[in-house]
Amino acid sequence: MTDEHPAGRVASADRKNGLDRRNLLSGLTLLPLVSASLVSAPALAQTSADAGALPSWQDGAAKQAILDFVRTTTERSSATYIPPEERIATFDQDGTLWVEQPVYTQVVYCLDRVPAVVAKKPELKEAEPFKTVLSGNREAIARLSLHDLEKILFATLTGMTTEEFAAEAKAWLATAKHPRWNRPYTELVYQPMLEVLQYLRASGYKTYIVTGGGQDFVRVYADKVYGIPPEQVVGTAGGTTYGYDKDGKPFLMKEPKLLLNDDKAGKAEGIHLMIGRRPCAAFGNSDGDREMLEWTCAGPGARLGMLVLHDDAAREFAYGPAAGLPDSKVGRFTPALYDEAKKSKWTVISMKNDWKRIFAFG
Amino acid sequence: MTDEHPAGRVASADRKNGLDRRNLLSGLTLLPLVSASLVSAPALAQTSADAGALPSWQDGAAKQAILDFVRTTTERSSATYIPPEERIATFDQDGTLWVEQPVYTQVVYCLDRVPAVVAKKPELKEAEPFKTVLSGNREAIARLSLHDLEKILFATLTGMTTEEFAAEAKAWLATAKHPRWNRPYTELVYQPMLEVLQYLRASGYKTYIVTGGGQDFVRVYADKVYGIPPEQVVGTAGGTTYGYDKDGKPFLMKEPKLLLNDDKAGKAEGIHLMIGRRPCAAFGNSDGDREMLEWTCAGPGARLGMLVLHDDAAREFAYGPAAGLPDSKVGRFTPALYDEAKKSKWTVISMKNDWKRIFAFG
Repeated sequence: MTDEHPAGRVASADRKNGLDRRNLLSGLTLLPLVSASLVSAPALAQTSADAGALPSWQDGAAKQAILDFVRTTTERSSATYIPPEERIATFDQDGTLWVEQPVYTQVVYCLDRVPAVVAKKPELKEAEPFKTVLSGNREAIARLSLHDLEKILFATLTGMTTEEFAAEAKAWLATAKHPRWNRPYTELVYQPMLEVLQYLRASGYKTYIVTGGGQDFVRVYADKVYGIPPEQVVGTAGGTTYGYDKDGKPFLMKEPKLLLNDDKAGKAEGIHLMIGRRPCAAFGNSDGDREMLEWTCAGPGARLGMLVLHDDAAREFAYGPAAGLPDSKVGRFTPALYDEAKKSKWTVISMKNDWKRIFAFG
Repeated sequence: MTDEHPAGRVASADRKNGLDRRNLLSGLTLLPLVSASLVSAPALAQTSADAGALPSWQDGAAKQAILDFVRTTTERSSATYIPPEERIATFDQDGTLWVEQPVYTQVVYCLDRVPAVVAKKPELKEAEPFKTVLSGNREAIARLSLHDLEKILFATLTGMTTEEFAAEAKAWLATAKHPRWNRPYTELVYQPMLEVLQYLRASGYKTYIVTGGGQDFVRVYADKVYGIPPEQVVGTAGGTTYGYDKDGKPFLMKEPKLLLNDDKAGKAEGIHLMIGRRPCAAFGNSDGDREMLEWTCAGPGARLGMLVLHDDAAREFAYGPAAGLPDSKVGRFTPALYDEAKKSKWTVISMKNDWKRIFAFG
């Protein structure tokens, strides 16, 4: 990347909520990629120490940026050496570690939970937006407003204990399948990113997820799927209330009270709240990750900021609207972010050109 | 401990705030300990594997409880073996890891910061409670209400960036001294508890601080003083707001908005929010730690709950009011908590009888 582009800062991020202010369920038009050639850069020489790392990555600027970052921060002789305890790397989840199209997985979960919620509260059966969800009319569901969606999220993610929620989410994940691949959502993780997680951990980095998705939801499977333990998952979080059941055993009840909206500026704020250190490396894929990368890369010494560009309609999805890709309701990567990436020397990862394979099952 | 005592549950914890609803700065009457003999229990045989662990602990039930817990949770042949990744131990700070009398250290910090805050905002000079603090009249300061104290906390802990705050707190800690020992507050840590932290970590446990004190404040020194990194400090936390300085560099501004009141039930809620796992062991010293111990010990398998009883006026302080000790404005250990400890088989640690030494400098 070069920095000759006069990139204007995105002045006023919409911080009012972590979700795009439009309906989320519209289908995507998968237009062919126009400008993939803007993304990749020529390969640089690898050191022998790196041989074998990141096998699902094509040799090129993106792979090299990761290898260079790790080498210059972990070799004791390096001027930008980072002590092991300060090695923190943060990863967005949706669109960065796993598929986010055509709808965020957790939103699918919430929609699927509506019948169970209505069974417990029959008065919701004829009330909107539950009635529409129960109708199964996908077009009508796709037109639900953000306000409707929030009602569904609160109804399906709160009002149960933390242990009940974890059991429900786990059961759903064991059976639900993505409509395109007909596989569990937990298999739709990007093999090249799993390799980055492993490579960073093997290099002494502590890897965190910093997601706009629900913290409690992601914690259910992050350890198994990504090797990231619950205490290293930062996400959008609601309050709980401590109480006792009839046997005097304590529980934590999930409440419809937002404590952390872990998206956009909330990601930097959430990193401070939950980690308390500035990361050295950050990976994202959308405007929601901009502040996380800014905050990470504003620290001293060697820093790594990377953004996944979804430019591979054949193997996954293609959406931007940066780089001439079609616009998207979910996970927007805007031209303004693309310009900031150039200016800030963040590396844009082309799924099409930088990744040999997308999934482990490919 | 035995469980024959019919201990009534403390029914209505004051959850409205994390501070005792009285003035905090009153001196303590250090009455002699009446009932230390209730606390200790006869020593049990130690295994050879434990030889040399916890050298500042007297042989006795408290030391043995720690050794037994570690052995039965880390030996692979044990029926209550816990895998390393699930080994979480949480520690209250004030009164459990370091001295909390006669006033919480962070409150002293806030009072000491008032002149600097008033210098920046001269309009506060004649406004209460700042005027009283500036007067230096210790009796008047001791009579300040909780509402006054909150004003002081907000004025001295918010309105600066996270980096400015950390620098201010660090500078204060380097020079401020406790009036009784004339030593830095960071030297007034309990040597026996440092040994527990080290012993648990050597046994694969991840040690966390879960404090009613300010998360940002404790993170400044926890690594150096306790070997606990910032990301393992859970405390009372306020919101921040992401912004940019005139050079476009991002900052996080500390805001007077409470996100987590990490005391009483808030400790269990904070553990869920920030760790996302139920601890296996928890250490506290006051009613503020009750729910943390309940939440910890309600899990399956081997659990360890311990409470430090301050019954050593000669070497530290003596306050309860449990066990016939004088009442206290700070760090109350009530008879109800004492009864619950007996019922729940939590171990009460007598500072007088269980600890050979209190401080490293002793």
